Amino acid sequence: MIVVRTIAELRAALAPRRNGTIGFVPTMGALHEGHATLLRAARAADDAVVMSIFVNPTQFNEQADLAAYPRTEAADLALAEAEGMDVVFAPDIAEMYPAGFATTVSVTGPIAETLEGAERGRGHFDGVATVVTKLLLAALPDRAYFGAKDAQQVAVIRRFVADLGLPVEIVVCPTSRDADGLARSSRNTRLSAEERTRALAIPRALEAVKDAAAEGVAHTGALRARAVAKLEAAGIRSEYLAFVDPETFAPAAVVEGPVLVAIAARVGTTRLIDNIVIGGA
Amino acid sequence: MIVVRTIAELRAALAPRRNGTIGFVPTMGALHEGHATLLRAARAADDAVVMSIFVNPTQFNEQADLAAYPRTEAADLALAEAEGMDVVFAPDIAEMYPAGFATTVSVTGPIAETLEGAERGRGHFDGVATVVTKLLLAALPDRAYFGAKDAQQVAVIRRFVADLGLPVEIVVCPTSRDADGLARSSRNTRLSAEERTRALAIPRALEAVKDAAAEGVAHTGALRARAVAKLEAAGIRSEYLAFVDPETFAPAAVVEGPVLVAIAARVGTTRLIDNIVIGGA
Repeated sequence: MIVVRTIAELRAALAPRRNGTIGFVPTMGALHEGHATLLRAARAADDAVVMSIFVNPTQFNEQADLAAYPRTEAADLALAEAEGMDVVFAPDIAEMYPAGFATTVSVTGPIAETLEGAERGRGHFDGVATVVTKLLLAALPDRAYFGAKDAQQVAVIRRFVADLGLPVEIVVCPTSRDADGLARSSRNTRLSAEERTRALAIPRALEAVKDAAAEGVAHTGALRARAVAKLEAAGIRSEYLAFVDPETFAPAAVVEGPVLVAIAARVGTTRLIDNIVIGGA
Repeated sequence: MIVVRTIAELRAALAPRRNGTIGFVPTMGALHEGHATLLRAARAADDAVVMSIFVNPTQFNEQADLAAYPRTEAADLALAEAEGMDVVFAPDIAEMYPAGFATTVSVTGPIAETLEGAERGRGHFDGVATVVTKLLLAALPDRAYFGAKDAQQVAVIRRFVADLGLPVEIVVCPTSRDADGLARSSRNTRLSAEERTRALAIPRALEAVKDAAAEGVAHTGALRARAVAKLEAAGIRSEYLAFVDPETFAPAAVVEGPVLVAIAARVGTTRLIDNIVIGGA
């Protein structure tokens, strides 16, 4: 496995591998089993696989959150090697944003401005779109892999990739969950044992919505009440609990096609997000 | 010469040509001798050459200006063929901006917000950056050719190409001029004979600045006065007459390295722009 720090080195490392397909897994490091499922999906599908580690400052709305973001590069590289990565691209900030950098890729509309966009500020998805565009252009992969847990990030990425015509297939892997159902996240380690137990109300709320939808409940107001009951039973008040079109993020009043059910909630001081899609095509 | 209307057709047409270099000349049509110099530069340097014709609505700040923009596709295709183009890409608006399109590429700072950016509105260079990104990603050329007359457009394009790492070399060709010195432009045909004569004060003003700089006048205030005198003698008042760093568009008080001297002025109702670089490296 080769570790490279510059875009020029990345391109040089990938150049001899372009006779086959290239899979790319962009990460912010602090890897866990959820990331490993993405690495395995890429390893299984592509001839050469590259992972990036870059904690992107422009997508953090709070400097404290950025400063507190876990950096675990040695462990991340060990996992990448164990999962069969060929190349790891781990640039520093000056490589990605050299002096004079002045370009932003933005997606407008509900897809970028509601839910996470509203909670984390307008700049969050601008930061994501800009850095992912730059990473995709640096690696020029055939496929790039993202987790369904970040559903809105996926929708934003699909949008600008389609709009700009970036020559890459976006592959979305199912949310990876612990045995108890909690969606895997770097933030889960911050939960106390008691908080961890309470946090399970989040996947249970989503399951309750799924079950009710399967029983024929179609109005999202009624489905929402089922989820709220589960969350309230655990003393959790959501930041949002939304039923939206998975592509446009327009609110859905009735389940007539695929509807993304997305939750963000703080358990103690830890902010967690999770989602499922119901009414699938 | 193949004429294609969709990005998929463009990629299919270029795929068998990727064993050699691909040169790309994006245009808004209404081709004149200035464009022909770009086509020739591409034809001379690259193995395959593609030109695009797309009147990009998002870079016009006035609907009337967009509606009045000349469309001369038959003549443009004839010129392209005469200049040896292999492929012409002439998409319609729905191909470039399908329903749901929501992405913008922006450059911030003086480079995009002063001079043309201030005169034509913030959206102008956003429109340019977004469409040129999409065109470059559609064609994925080795080199793309632009005219030095649109100096600020060139600076904006160089900026986002470098920032995002688009894998293309930007080639800037010298401003093409008629025998009398007037910079070639689609708009020149709108000038009356009397206006055309008066418009020559614009290149003469630039020449006067160049001569004065060559004589050792280094303060741009003094150089500016030489240009203003030439313009005023022809009854022309500039919209701007700026001395700036050619890369950052920061104002230059003294000529110590390359300085872009840029003029915009209306002659009658026709808006003309022109520029030179003095103090070259």
